[in-house]
Amino acid sequence: MTTGHGAPAPTKARIANSMGKAKILMEALPYIREFRGRTVVVKYGGSTMEDPALRASFAGDITLLATVGIHPVIVHGGGPQISAAMERDGIVPTWEDGLRVTDEDTIKVVQRVLVGEVNADIVRLLGGHGARAIGVTGLDAGLLTAAQKDPRLGFVGEIETVNADLLRRLIAEGLVPVVAPIARGVDGNVYNTNADTAAGAIAAALGAQKLVYLTDVEGLYRDAEDASTVIARATLAELSELLPGIRGGMLPKLESVVEALGAGVRQAHVLDGRVQHALLLEIFTPEGIGTMISEEVR
Amino acid sequence: MTTGHGAPAPTKARIANSMGKAKILMEALPYIREFRGRTVVVKYGGSTMEDPALRASFAGDITLLATVGIHPVIVHGGGPQISAAMERDGIVPTWEDGLRVTDEDTIKVVQRVLVGEVNADIVRLLGGHGARAIGVTGLDAGLLTAAQKDPRLGFVGEIETVNADLLRRLIAEGLVPVVAPIARGVDGNVYNTNADTAAGAIAAALGAQKLVYLTDVEGLYRDAEDASTVIARATLAELSELLPGIRGGMLPKLESVVEALGAGVRQAHVLDGRVQHALLLEIFTPEGIGTMISEEVR
Amino acid sequence: MTTGHGAPAPTKARIANSMGKAKILMEALPYIREFRGRTVVVKYGGSTMEDPALRASFAGDITLLATVGIHPVIVHGGGPQISAAMERDGIVPTWEDGLRVTDEDTIKVVQRVLVGEVNADIVRLLGGHGARAIGVTGLDAGLLTAAQKDPRLGFVGEIETVNADLLRRLIAEGLVPVVAPIARGVDGNVYNTNADTAAGAIAAALGAQKLVYLTDVEGLYRDAEDASTVIARATLAELSELLPGIRGGMLPKLESVVEALGAGVRQAHVLDGRVQHALLLEIFTPEGIGTMISEEVR
Amino acid sequence: MTTGHGAPAPTKARIANSMGKAKILMEALPYIREFRGRTVVVKYGGSTMEDPALRASFAGDITLLATVGIHPVIVHGGGPQISAAMERDGIVPTWEDGLRVTDEDTIKVVQRVLVGEVNADIVRLLGGHGARAIGVTGLDAGLLTAAQKDPRLGFVGEIETVNADLLRRLIAEGLVPVVAPIARGVDGNVYNTNADTAAGAIAAALGAQKLVYLTDVEGLYRDAEDASTVIARATLAELSELLPGIRGGMLPKLESVVEALGAGVRQAHVLDGRVQHALLLEIFTPEGIGTMISEEVR
Amino acid sequence: MTTGHGAPAPTKARIANSMGKAKILMEALPYIREFRGRTVVVKYGGSTMEDPALRASFAGDITLLATVGIHPVIVHGGGPQISAAMERDGIVPTWEDGLRVTDEDTIKVVQRVLVGEVNADIVRLLGGHGARAIGVTGLDAGLLTAAQKDPRLGFVGEIETVNADLLRRLIAEGLVPVVAPIARGVDGNVYNTNADTAAGAIAAALGAQKLVYLTDVEGLYRDAEDASTVIARATLAELSELLPGIRGGMLPKLESVVEALGAGVRQAHVLDGRVQHALLLEIFTPEGIGTMISEEVR
Amino acid sequence: MTTGHGAPAPTKARIANSMGKAKILMEALPYIREFRGRTVVVKYGGSTMEDPALRASFAGDITLLATVGIHPVIVHGGGPQISAAMERDGIVPTWEDGLRVTDEDTIKVVQRVLVGEVNADIVRLLGGHGARAIGVTGLDAGLLTAAQKDPRLGFVGEIETVNADLLRRLIAEGLVPVVAPIARGVDGNVYNTNADTAAGAIAAALGAQKLVYLTDVEGLYRDAEDASTVIARATLAELSELLPGIRGGMLPKLESVVEALGAGVRQAHVLDGRVQHALLLEIFTPEGIGTMISEEVR
Repeated sequence: MTTGHGAPAPTKARIANSMGKAKILMEALPYIREFRGRTVVVKYGGSTMEDPALRASFAGDITLLATVGIHPVIVHGGGPQISAAMERDGIVPTWEDGLRVTDEDTIKVVQRVLVGEVNADIVRLLGGHGARAIGVTGLDAGLLTAAQKDPRLGFVGEIETVNADLLRRLIAEGLVPVVAPIARGVDGNVYNTNADTAAGAIAAALGAQKLVYLTDVEGLYRDAEDASTVIARATLAELSELLPGIRGGMLPKLESVVEALGAGVRQAHVLDGRVQHALLLEIFTPEGIGTMISEEVR
Repeated sequence: MTTGHGAPAPTKARIANSMGKAKILMEALPYIREFRGRTVVVKYGGSTMEDPALRASFAGDITLLATVGIHPVIVHGGGPQISAAMERDGIVPTWEDGLRVTDEDTIKVVQRVLVGEVNADIVRLLGGHGARAIGVTGLDAGLLTAAQKDPRLGFVGEIETVNADLLRRLIAEGLVPVVAPIARGVDGNVYNTNADTAAGAIAAALGAQKLVYLTDVEGLYRDAEDASTVIARATLAELSELLPGIRGGMLPKLESVVEALGAGVRQAHVLDGRVQHALLLEIFTPEGIGTMISEEVR
Repeated sequence: MTTGHGAPAPTKARIANSMGKAKILMEALPYIREFRGRTVVVKYGGSTMEDPALRASFAGDITLLATVGIHPVIVHGGGPQISAAMERDGIVPTWEDGLRVTDEDTIKVVQRVLVGEVNADIVRLLGGHGARAIGVTGLDAGLLTAAQKDPRLGFVGEIETVNADLLRRLIAEGLVPVVAPIARGVDGNVYNTNADTAAGAIAAALGAQKLVYLTDVEGLYRDAEDASTVIARATLAELSELLPGIRGGMLPKLESVVEALGAGVRQAHVLDGRVQHALLLEIFTPEGIGTMISEEVR
Repeated sequence: MTTGHGAPAPTKARIANSMGKAKILMEALPYIREFRGRTVVVKYGGSTMEDPALRASFAGDITLLATVGIHPVIVHGGGPQISAAMERDGIVPTWEDGLRVTDEDTIKVVQRVLVGEVNADIVRLLGGHGARAIGVTGLDAGLLTAAQKDPRLGFVGEIETVNADLLRRLIAEGLVPVVAPIARGVDGNVYNTNADTAAGAIAAALGAQKLVYLTDVEGLYRDAEDASTVIARATLAELSELLPGIRGGMLPKLESVVEALGAGVRQAHVLDGRVQHALLLEIFTPEGIGTMISEEVR
Repeated sequence: MTTGHGAPAPTKARIANSMGKAKILMEALPYIREFRGRTVVVKYGGSTMEDPALRASFAGDITLLATVGIHPVIVHGGGPQISAAMERDGIVPTWEDGLRVTDEDTIKVVQRVLVGEVNADIVRLLGGHGARAIGVTGLDAGLLTAAQKDPRLGFVGEIETVNADLLRRLIAEGLVPVVAPIARGVDGNVYNTNADTAAGAIAAALGAQKLVYLTDVEGLYRDAEDASTVIARATLAELSELLPGIRGGMLPKLESVVEALGAGVRQAHVLDGRVQHALLLEIFTPEGIGTMISEEVR
Repeated sequence: MTTGHGAPAPTKARIANSMGKAKILMEALPYIREFRGRTVVVKYGGSTMEDPALRASFAGDITLLATVGIHPVIVHGGGPQISAAMERDGIVPTWEDGLRVTDEDTIKVVQRVLVGEVNADIVRLLGGHGARAIGVTGLDAGLLTAAQKDPRLGFVGEIETVNADLLRRLIAEGLVPVVAPIARGVDGNVYNTNADTAAGAIAAALGAQKLVYLTDVEGLYRDAEDASTVIARATLAELSELLPGIRGGMLPKLESVVEALGAGVRQAHVLDGRVQHALLLEIFTPEGIGTMISEEVR
């Protein structure tokens, strides 16, 4: 029998501190209520996947979401890891019109790295924080099927179908699916697909509440050269106007946003994955961070 | 399209603030995980039922619990409200051996006040914060039955049975039951029961995770005369040693704690309801407040 | 071991008596079959709520309905009880254009009396006859929301929404809901609503089989001055013709009937609640009593 | 629009008549409540199966039971019908030690008559009164299996197993099973079983509330020669004392009663099937008719 | 401990034999996958119902279908058995315009033979092979209702309604329904219906995958005089062209096929029931036997 | 419209062929009936995993099992693939007391190869044959946890717990789990576990019907030097006698068999995976192949 749960007796300071905590928890209440039972598809990639502190904060965020009854689905990429493995294995990439060719050796590396390294590592990471994560690939029970994008590019696929039912059932079992975006072609071969695009297609098929891209930038810039022009909120219409000027890795993200919102996803986000707990802050606090795109500004 | 969700651009201070928020939310995670799907019976009474700010913080706490998947059940008293109504109606209490007699007129006032004032007001309060509260009385579907305590005391009852199934079904429908502790006697009459005891009996019947008393003191004192002797944690054995020295309103609470822990309730708490968000802080933060009693100190 | 279950040996008279009983039970069969699994909303008020013999016969009727698998929902008023309580509390009613104003003190009395007296008493009455009754108010889980009818009248509301789902779930749990017709306003305040209108709105929201008004008259009269002109059956069209001539307490009932039948309720009844077992006789015997109104005479 | 539902205006006499009806319906309430959801196995045979008025009253009784939520299961015999068919087909019965031998031709007649005549006729009869009856034989999905009783008697079987699950599932589908008591032998052949015994075995396997024999006598007599000695109630112990003196068709009934009560059936009845609505009167009125046997007199 | 499961050690011949077995089992795989969870209505009649070896192979086929998760429903006739019974009973058929009259005596024979002989025998046969068969007649729970075809023909009915829900529920319980095609008339009498037509109506009501007629011919002939003109596959359009030239027992089958395919049944088959395992071979092997008719040749 | 389903007209030879097919399908019936709804855990490894024809026959077997309602769970190894990858990556194995050490680099290779190569390839293989396969690793939702076997061996684990519930739920969703036997240690690291042992532990945790080892030998030999001494059947007792003489890769298999049978698995098999369709033949034909071990010889 001790005085204080192993802690000093309450003081004014302690009470003030407690009130502050309570205020922040209460602040999260309307967001939890709004998003409970809804699905949030998170594209996980870039720095946030490599930095240990960011990895831990990401795992905590996902676990908190799942614990309060929101359903996260994670789709990950693995470009840098694939490039490193190819180099390690001495595979020299070849190119067609500036696009990398994915030949038979390369797709084997892709599968091995995405499934055997990145996916399993994320599942382990989440498991360590208490989430009931399960790794799945597009090959599992026909989750993703793809058509060949261009014969010259080899095993590069465009997603044709998503077996949303499989994900819904895993979610209903209380699991957090972690998806490696390889797909089965009609020829039975494995095809690599763009992770950003896969995330969008999965969000659309699930009718998700949110599609979130964790990136290495602060958000969507009005002027890509000027970091001070981050857009906080945009409608779908405004995004469509910006789209022709977009280049690089942001393009597949934004194209996916357009498609996903068109298919019923309510909100899309481009977040700065370099900020710890970016996901948590976006979902559970009124400030929001990065760019949010929705059909209409509400 | 605006820069910032209607808020100034992120600054170092803002980021530090955000990190603080994230830390506090993450701190709650293990508690949410531990208590999800479990039932917490809260005896609601005293100052926390009267002060507007405390009422609001209580309603927020209950709503947050319900929203993250914990199942609160509220049992309320209403002594001061009953006394006021009796005075208003000009009913002069009579006494037997120092105990107040509940005659036919008095039990009518008790029912009218507990059910028609206190209970309905709490339901409305919670509804206003977003909880799906439903008022029930011990008369509903045989929720509480009672035996007469002492013929000289009239309609004062001791709880004999609790229809836990009714509460379980309401909980399963996503409702937050708010219980007015009147009971049906075998003679068909209404009996008043002690709210502290009713809360304990309901917690025991439900096999609740926690039984929480919101009180007007800081917790259980080792020496009732010395406010600095609040006990932070006690085992059931330690409590039993203290019990003979306990007097007043704390006695039925602690007797109920002993019974409830014996019947499988995991933890009992005596909290200071005068502190805003006492419930939230006890459940979702590591500090804890007030006194916690459990079978074993863990 | 006795001859006869504690009764004299069968005689011709006893057999004739038995045959009579069997005939009456068999007569009820087609009605039970027709209404099984259907909902019957009963507005309970007037003499039948005050006379002990009528109270008992009402409770028996409701319990029998529930026991054979028909789903009764009770909506009660409490005008006289409210007036008595106001007088007791010394509240003098004020009037606007001949309508009583419900100020803050008055609405408190309304809530206290409807919920804490009338509702709880009906629940106890039904429980005593074996029904699994549960008291609910319009405040429970958003059951009834209302808009202010006229600012000059204060807390008098018109029902805007009915959470039929809550009632359906209580019914599915085998419970008999007893509804006190107070509602939550958008301003969070309690509003008093007309019990006749509330019964109609609830029947409409539930798609009930029947909406039954237990009244202090024999039924609907063609000529209100002439008791011999009780109408046994009317179509909705015939009722609409009569409506302009209707005055007093019958008006909100008949307006609700028109709305409820329009919303899919099959049959509405105005019964003489002063006749014992009026409900039972209307539902389970071919004679019928009072007035029945339906879309078409069948 | 008419005055009275096509009936004369209410008179005192009519009201008195109505009150009488209500009284009888209310009288049935405690019995319906007690037996709702319970199973009642009825052995149907003798005069009540042949007389048109008795057939109709039986069908009405069963339909009423099913409609108020009690689960009847009917087991029928068909001795006279079988004898008539054998005679028609010119089959001369042979005997062994005074017992009729069931050879291959005979068992074919038994099956044809029990299943193709008696069972189908009962199903049609019940269907005509509104019950959802389904005919089953002991051959359906292994409902009844039997061992040969005595090689000299041919295809006469003793029941070994009852597939109570099949009956439970049919009941759960809202069906009223009508069982023809033939069984499958381990040799795959059809065996005839005693219908009284089959009813008892089925009641035991189902853990039925009641096992009812509809017979051509008033009940169980203390002295079979003296019709005035009908026993109204007996305990299992009292029945066991009487058993050694019992002869004829009553013997298998009473032996089955002993077994069924031993296996958990609550009450067994020997009723006079020659009285219209015997079943209804026994179950829904306080008088009771015939003999009731239970573990203990309550 | 023995060498070989009670069999000689593996030899090349044994392995070759084993490979052959495996090949055949694998060949069945796509068919099982295609038809799993689907319903197949089989009209059972003719030689295949009389020859012991054919009976056994039929029972095996049905049991195998049920065991791998396909849902067979059997509808049987019994013309020859009825004729034999009529002759045995000395009933001389009368005729109207060349059609046999079914008077009261005759319909009794029909019921007794179809239900008490043929149906019960099939149920026993299937039970002996391990299927959970249950005999039902059109009288059970309103399975089949019929209108009189022609007053001069007496109790000959045309099917008006099929209670497909009853069959679906029996199937859902894992049972194999065996249907005797008698029906209830609106007058409450039993009517005989054509088994071929009944099978078609049942298949249509169930939205079956297949409607299979087991017949005494090889299939549908283009030229009924020339056995070499068996048609392997026909579309519904082609069948309609042939229909005017069809005579005899094939006509009701093909008319039923036209109706059933029109109502959504996918495939109809006319198989040679004289070939052992005709059903199995048609369903589980690529060769197919007899004639298959479908909306479109695929 | 064609004669024959695109095949020549039936001939005697064709009919004989068909009869042979039917016979083999019927032969499988009792086995399907016995094992329907039961789980069969298959350890997949060795030659059968590498030879294309054997891979195809294995995939067909698993798909057929799943299609007829038996629940296969596959546990695979990958020793040769891991060795090849290590060599490719230039990792030189180190040894402790003759056992290979699994250091940090090695466990990464193990994970990458087992999960990213072998597991994903099996899932794709099965998907190509129509099975709804899903790859899982011991890291998914805590499927396998392990303790370190020996500090000197590094990341080599012994299975401590199996989350059988996860597998049961996947099975209930109609999925075929394919398990990569890596596990999570209490330290959060990945541990490699013996696939044979993992298969046994999973079979035990699931209470599987069968545990099947597909190996590169004909079965269990009484004398390992003499291929003619293959044992067809052994009891658990007999196996225990043989165990001390067993060496090499057969040892963990047989130890697992002993544990699994002790934990309630009914039958264990050591099959020759070099024979096409070994699994199918063992399960669906009376001959059986390889060695079967069960508690008792039946």
